[in-house]
Amino acid sequence: MPLSRPMTSLMLAFLLPGVAFSESIADLGARIAQKGTPKGAAPCMSCHGPAGAGMAATAYPRIAGLDAGYLAKQLGDFRSGRRKNPIMATMAVNLTEREIAAVSAYYAGLPVPPPPAQPPAGKAAKSATDLVQWGDWTGRGLPACRQCHAPGGNGIGSTFPGIAAQQASYIKAQLQAWQAGTRSNDPLGLMKAVADKLTPSEIDAVAAYYAAKPGGAPTLAEPAPKGAANGPARAVPLYRGQVAQQGAPPVGRAPGAGAYFKSPTRDALPGGPFGEVVRRGGAIFENTNANPVSAKYVGNDQACSNCHIDAGRLAGSAPLWAAWVAYPAYRSKNKKVNTFIQRVEGCFKYSMNAQASAAGGAPAADSDAIVALVAYSFWLAKGAPTGDDAMPGRGYPRLTETRLGFDPERGEAVYGAKCALCHGEKGSGVINAKGRTLFPPLWGPGSYNWGAGMHRIDAAAAFVKHNMPLGMGGSLGDQEAWDVAAFMNSHERPQDPRYKGDLAATTKRFHASLFDYYGKRRSAHGLPLGERPARR
Amino acid sequence: MPLSRPMTSLMLAFLLPGVAFSESIADLGARIAQKGTPKGAAPCMSCHGPAGAGMAATAYPRIAGLDAGYLAKQLGDFRSGRRKNPIMATMAVNLTEREIAAVSAYYAGLPVPPPPAQPPAGKAAKSATDLVQWGDWTGRGLPACRQCHAPGGNGIGSTFPGIAAQQASYIKAQLQAWQAGTRSNDPLGLMKAVADKLTPSEIDAVAAYYAAKPGGAPTLAEPAPKGAANGPARAVPLYRGQVAQQGAPPVGRAPGAGAYFKSPTRDALPGGPFGEVVRRGGAIFENTNANPVSAKYVGNDQACSNCHIDAGRLAGSAPLWAAWVAYPAYRSKNKKVNTFIQRVEGCFKYSMNAQASAAGGAPAADSDAIVALVAYSFWLAKGAPTGDDAMPGRGYPRLTETRLGFDPERGEAVYGAKCALCHGEKGSGVINAKGRTLFPPLWGPGSYNWGAGMHRIDAAAAFVKHNMPLGMGGSLGDQEAWDVAAFMNSHERPQDPRYKGDLAATTKRFHASLFDYYGKRRSAHGLPLGERPARR
Repeated sequence: MPLSRPMTSLMLAFLLPGVAFSESIADLGARIAQKGTPKGAAPCMSCHGPAGAGMAATAYPRIAGLDAGYLAKQLGDFRSGRRKNPIMATMAVNLTEREIAAVSAYYAGLPVPPPPAQPPAGKAAKSATDLVQWGDWTGRGLPACRQCHAPGGNGIGSTFPGIAAQQASYIKAQLQAWQAGTRSNDPLGLMKAVADKLTPSEIDAVAAYYAAKPGGAPTLAEPAPKGAANGPARAVPLYRGQVAQQGAPPVGRAPGAGAYFKSPTRDALPGGPFGEVVRRGGAIFENTNANPVSAKYVGNDQACSNCHIDAGRLAGSAPLWAAWVAYPAYRSKNKKVNTFIQRVEGCFKYSMNAQASAAGGAPAADSDAIVALVAYSFWLAKGAPTGDDAMPGRGYPRLTETRLGFDPERGEAVYGAKCALCHGEKGSGVINAKGRTLFPPLWGPGSYNWGAGMHRIDAAAAFVKHNMPLGMGGSLGDQEAWDVAAFMNSHERPQDPRYKGDLAATTKRFHASLFDYYGKRRSAHGLPLGERPARR
Repeated sequence: MPLSRPMTSLMLAFLLPGVAFSESIADLGARIAQKGTPKGAAPCMSCHGPAGAGMAATAYPRIAGLDAGYLAKQLGDFRSGRRKNPIMATMAVNLTEREIAAVSAYYAGLPVPPPPAQPPAGKAAKSATDLVQWGDWTGRGLPACRQCHAPGGNGIGSTFPGIAAQQASYIKAQLQAWQAGTRSNDPLGLMKAVADKLTPSEIDAVAAYYAAKPGGAPTLAEPAPKGAANGPARAVPLYRGQVAQQGAPPVGRAPGAGAYFKSPTRDALPGGPFGEVVRRGGAIFENTNANPVSAKYVGNDQACSNCHIDAGRLAGSAPLWAAWVAYPAYRSKNKKVNTFIQRVEGCFKYSMNAQASAAGGAPAADSDAIVALVAYSFWLAKGAPTGDDAMPGRGYPRLTETRLGFDPERGEAVYGAKCALCHGEKGSGVINAKGRTLFPPLWGPGSYNWGAGMHRIDAAAAFVKHNMPLGMGGSLGDQEAWDVAAFMNSHERPQDPRYKGDLAATTKRFHASLFDYYGKRRSAHGLPLGERPARR
């Protein structure tokens, strides 16, 4: 049951059918926590402590301040055996749905206890901050912890739990359990895929890092569909012999990650004004719609890093190093030779819908934003041969067409099973309280507009196939990728900025491709897509 | 005697002292040409033909339509033995100064005869057009023929003769004579340096090329000082043990031309729109102040190629390939990280004084001019490693300071001997009738402004040492280079665009260097340089 915050879960609890309301849900939750249940569930606090902070020595987790939906799902999984733990199973089998909801809401409503440990030092600190902040995409196809657990480590919605201020021993035990397969109640096998790539010392480092990090409230999320949240337990619709590869997916984006160009490491960045501008460029790239230098040029909820995984470093994810050395180049899109700067300005115009931004358009070539992005791209390409427009890993490796073509109706099922978990059932993504995009909107006013490359089904299919779900690129079948891309791009989004009032003319001139629904397929309004574009 | 066109020479002839004007100078010239002189000079036409077209079989040159000053100098050299030719010596010793002036003016006034030959074909045509248009700077330090003989091959002033519509056999014989040392009346040994680098088949190809090219009037030039025009025969002032290296200079700019990065050959440029834009960029680079795309942004008589020999390809001459891979970079000049585009815009602002242009400023980053220049630079850097900011040959290799420092007074003598030949006594260069700069102005309103890098004496000395005289880079002593750079930059030029009305403030903020005369040294006006800047 996806419950994204204590109040919501409380309210939902009242609506549960067939429950006697002899006691308020709040009182019920408190009572279970403190005294257990008559049917034999022990008081939670006897193991998790009076404040729900857990216990380091026994690896009992802190549960105070976690998302209620997440807690409820775990209790449900303990009860059903999907999550294996002899002690917790004994408790959970003795809890009713209403009791689970009540006690989950109770702990969700408690303040997050202070971090139980001191931060790691030296090599471990470096290793942890690297993994938390960047992961190891190019080496192992490993996402950064923060990408799903949110920048502060406080989790997102009911799916991705808060891990800041968690007991280190618990984090370590869970990572080992994902590795060993003794825990497997993660959606899509995401945590298994992550944990399998970690070394024992990295697990220690990351566990210590989060144990020392002050916790806070999780980021709200659009409720994900129940099936998706439950992950592998739900049958995934498949098509014509395509088999979704669960478990460890191909990593690193393609045969032999070592075969690709490697940008300089983040540590190699020099100090001084040049390093500072490169760093600023990286920060803008990561967080374009919220960074103070660039936010004014962004008219939706997108950041560069949404379409360029690992902040532009990852092969197969339109890496910046491959683009840098390929520009200037002729583009059929505007029938001109474009400089790299013009190409980036195009990203603002289309992918970031700059027309609807505070500035009303893309940043100028000599703006701080462009200079920083250019410096960042240049730096990522350090050592790459100028003019090589075919570096392995450039762009999104094209997907061959399937016999079945693509179908948004089939894609809807794929979406529900594999994508809605992060991007939400309505495709609106997750934006945190600071306006930072944690998971990008895929359609609607927060998404890229009808002029962006990603609105093309072939481009989106290639991106999805090689990069989605996050950290599990390559795990979808080709047919799934085609279908889900078609589904994604069968929704309205902001208008193509080249539209001058005549949909048919715009369609003819810019959207003639068969991989493009603009002006052709009907939207939910019953009108051709582009006729009533998404607006804020 | 520098006479730059027939009418001028005619008028000058009337002013020659001690001459009896019993016969008009025109009649005298015609008579000598047709009938010879009573003292025994044969009629010119008996060998050079009735129209002065020369004769292929005997390698007698066409003389009709050549510059009168050039013709007079040759007759003088035949007479003095500086140019060795038994037949012509016999004629010349029998001619008076007045007769030489008259017959030179006569032939200068005749129309250029039609080209005496058909153009070469196949490999020879390719070889010739390459040498005529581009020379072979990177391979042999060889300037293009057109750089001194003017784009149409019709010569510049009295120094560089027209060679279009010349007899192929004559051109070939002369090139062989420069090689053999049997002709040596060229200024500064320039033609010896060129001819020594040519193969026999190249000589044939180039001779055939010009023999087939329709001729026309030479480009006027500011009269060069007599000493310079007479070249090696005049003593060159030298300083403290510095010996000017006459004859073959070090070629290719530094030890082992092969050690430098090589841009793709001009033939490697692809067709299609990208190639077209690169070609346009090259044309702009060569001819910035006259090219229709870029002229409106140029407020003086400068072109990019003036400071970047071989159109940006030559090591030691601020090659574009080395700059391309080094930007964006922090520049202390403006205390910012600059993109390559901003760097090029800086060239327009300072070196090309864009403020005084029709557009009133440098071209925008997305202008056709900038896009083309960027594409051209990018293409020249094809294969160069991104981010390498220390490619061998980058910039102008710095010149170590000499014990004597630098002195504009000493530099003036160097200038007169080595530079005025092309740049003119007044430093105003040579601009042809189409507004194209053949030799760039070095000071005054047509030159770079006080904000350009070249106004610094150290930068100019480095450029001069490694690149001047054209095709003889390295032939000046270090002391000569320092002194002549000081002389060049002791003249007024257009104002620094960063000047806001306060010379002292501008000096303090931007011109504190000891290698910079702005605001410090007094100009010819008696005011500090920058106080009364050059204006059009």
